[in-house]
Amino acid sequence: MLLKLKVDYKKITGQDYKAGCPPNGIELNSTGPAVEDGDDQVDPWNVSTTNAKGVDYDKLIVRFGSSKIDDELISRIGRVTGQTPHRFLRRGVFFSHRDMHQVLDAYENKKSFFLYTGRGPSSEAMHVGHLIPFIFTKWLQDTFNVPLVIQLTDDEKYLWKDLTQEQCQRYAVENAKDIIALGFDVNKTFIFSDLDYMGSSPSFYRNVVKVQKHVTFNQVKGIFGFTDSDCIGKISFPAIQAAPSFSSSFPQIFNERKDLQCLIPCAIDQDPYFRMTRDVAPRIGYPKPALLHSTFFPALQGAQTKMSASDANTSIFLTDTPKQIKNKVNKHAFSGGKDTVEEHRKYGGNPDVDVSFMYLTFFLEDDEELEKMRQDYSSGALLTGELKKRLIENLQPMIAAHQERRKQVTEEMVKQFMTPRKLDFNF
Amino acid sequence: MLLKLKVDYKKITGQDYKAGCPPNGIELNSTGPAVEDGDDQVDPWNVSTTNAKGVDYDKLIVRFGSSKIDDELISRIGRVTGQTPHRFLRRGVFFSHRDMHQVLDAYENKKSFFLYTGRGPSSEAMHVGHLIPFIFTKWLQDTFNVPLVIQLTDDEKYLWKDLTQEQCQRYAVENAKDIIALGFDVNKTFIFSDLDYMGSSPSFYRNVVKVQKHVTFNQVKGIFGFTDSDCIGKISFPAIQAAPSFSSSFPQIFNERKDLQCLIPCAIDQDPYFRMTRDVAPRIGYPKPALLHSTFFPALQGAQTKMSASDANTSIFLTDTPKQIKNKVNKHAFSGGKDTVEEHRKYGGNPDVDVSFMYLTFFLEDDEELEKMRQDYSSGALLTGELKKRLIENLQPMIAAHQERRKQVTEEMVKQFMTPRKLDFNF
Repeated sequence: MLLKLKVDYKKITGQDYKAGCPPNGIELNSTGPAVEDGDDQVDPWNVSTTNAKGVDYDKLIVRFGSSKIDDELISRIGRVTGQTPHRFLRRGVFFSHRDMHQVLDAYENKKSFFLYTGRGPSSEAMHVGHLIPFIFTKWLQDTFNVPLVIQLTDDEKYLWKDLTQEQCQRYAVENAKDIIALGFDVNKTFIFSDLDYMGSSPSFYRNVVKVQKHVTFNQVKGIFGFTDSDCIGKISFPAIQAAPSFSSSFPQIFNERKDLQCLIPCAIDQDPYFRMTRDVAPRIGYPKPALLHSTFFPALQGAQTKMSASDANTSIFLTDTPKQIKNKVNKHAFSGGKDTVEEHRKYGGNPDVDVSFMYLTFFLEDDEELEKMRQDYSSGALLTGELKKRLIENLQPMIAAHQERRKQVTEEMVKQFMTPRKLDFNF
Repeated sequence: MLLKLKVDYKKITGQDYKAGCPPNGIELNSTGPAVEDGDDQVDPWNVSTTNAKGVDYDKLIVRFGSSKIDDELISRIGRVTGQTPHRFLRRGVFFSHRDMHQVLDAYENKKSFFLYTGRGPSSEAMHVGHLIPFIFTKWLQDTFNVPLVIQLTDDEKYLWKDLTQEQCQRYAVENAKDIIALGFDVNKTFIFSDLDYMGSSPSFYRNVVKVQKHVTFNQVKGIFGFTDSDCIGKISFPAIQAAPSFSSSFPQIFNERKDLQCLIPCAIDQDPYFRMTRDVAPRIGYPKPALLHSTFFPALQGAQTKMSASDANTSIFLTDTPKQIKNKVNKHAFSGGKDTVEEHRKYGGNPDVDVSFMYLTFFLEDDEELEKMRQDYSSGALLTGELKKRLIENLQPMIAAHQERRKQVTEEMVKQFMTPRKLDFNF
């Protein structure tokens, strides 16, 4: 009878029965490929919209099959941690999730988790937008007191860009310095470059191969839009971004345990990687990673596009001087104000498309001040120039402080963060 | 003018100009994909023919674009090394090559090379056919006094077969014992499992990614016949079999040098991997590996198929007892003799399709004795039973001696062979 059941199972699912493993493709089929929907396109390499307010994130939640971070979840995070939820939660910067309630359920039952985030080091120059997931990840690490792994995908950048491996590895180290400058706890944080770590950890490679065995070209074609002309490195790369979701990829940290829950804070464009990961996880005997998704940080020119590291005028870079910051904001930050002071006073401005206001949403801690500015700008009491001035006053000391902290980051510290080792944490 | 030239180059080749790198695809296009030709099919996973003499190897040379190992090359190997060429050369077991003259030219000018061969560990049970490339490789190592790397593709077997990684790794170790039992010099030989070595050598992974960047899905589809339903692990695997062709994949052996010539002795079905490798090599700044190709060792049932490790009656296994060997040869070895003794005496037998005679071609060292048997069998003077008896007398002590040597192979020795380390060789 068992045999008969297995045969029937295979007929229905097209797959051999494995105890404890749901059939392949269920998560993938329910969410569908990450293609264009109306005017918005969102995948790991392209984000574009024609809407001045930016991508329609509510639509994205429906399309990706994730869940909205609603007021109830935000206040639950506050209750569970005893901390005021981070402004990125209060203001909808992190707006979507997968399984965050499950993470909190377990946490309340004294079952911990680990954090995983990353960056593709395609140049030395990081801008403020790149900091968003890291600022939030640091808050999560501090608030939940959990270990963190940060993947620098220098192999991905080598595969996708016209760069040498040496360049990508150098960018990885330079980017690591900016990340370290945010104040991560060296005793709880492991930063790694793929080009180094893959060759330093048999466990990591074994998990990569496990994922690679369970994902077909058809699947990555559907999820990422790869074609037959893509190199085989790109085609198999998604497994490398998937592997850090599994605690057994880091035996030195997690003591060979393979059942620890992972929570991934990232921008929503990275979700395709983790939809794939969540599809594969149960089939290779691992828990699905949970996710927290952020919106995109807008370019100075407006929310229609992601910022570009290759165009210095589209963003505020972490290396900008106070003068550069002032000039960029004054000259390039798209304004939601009216053409003349008279009209502005009369009709008011539109904070929803005003880039200076958007940036303040990300960086101004004081909720009341921000809300007052929204009202005053909408009513016309606050002028665009005044709004820009407030943003410049916010950014200049923030960037200067970052530069000061980055100067303190020595090669020795980078090496410490990037050495595979035991972290200060007991599960 | 240089710019104009680069633009023209790109127009013609479809690729950016890189100094010293011929355009992509030239080697691949000239040889074509490894598909069926008449009745013979030869690729890394399928070898079949309807001809009782076996695959038409002359046709294969034309189809693959390799060169025949002719009498001139064989005697040159004898001259250069001062040794009688191995019986596998004298008898056409190794019948095809790529760039072997170039290897000898360099060798005569005191420029050495390294050997690379391998095995896919899909079970514990190795048969005599599996030994062919290793017997020949040992002769090459002894004769040319060169270092050798042996790749055990346990990751490949995990990807292709219904096996766990643990099983594949155990098979790798068991197979390594049989290989070591052939008498390789531990000071000149490095044996590695992919599942271990990939995670122990950043240099190896970096070369894998380099190859993966320079091969498209279209190319592996053409060369290996992969389809959209294949898992991404299979699709990217060819880069992993390519990487050991480059000396920089083994910095511990070759002291970071990346210009050393590689010579690969292997069965002809592995050639597709190395056609791809030779196509990629100049584009990533490495020398093309040279090759020596062997014919296939026939199954006891005849030369139409390769032997199967999963059917004990298709071959002589390295674990067979003298009695099993005797029974298998007598019962299963396909005979080229006539139906009755009378007819045989009258018309003679056909050694070209007689499996016992073929096996003696592989294992009997004495050329004169072999030639006499051929004549006597053809004339009818030698009966099938007598031929089988001679083969049994050859195989029984050979296998017994192998078993004796394998017993001497300790776990400690395996560990020694499989530890990345400096080898006893100066380039």
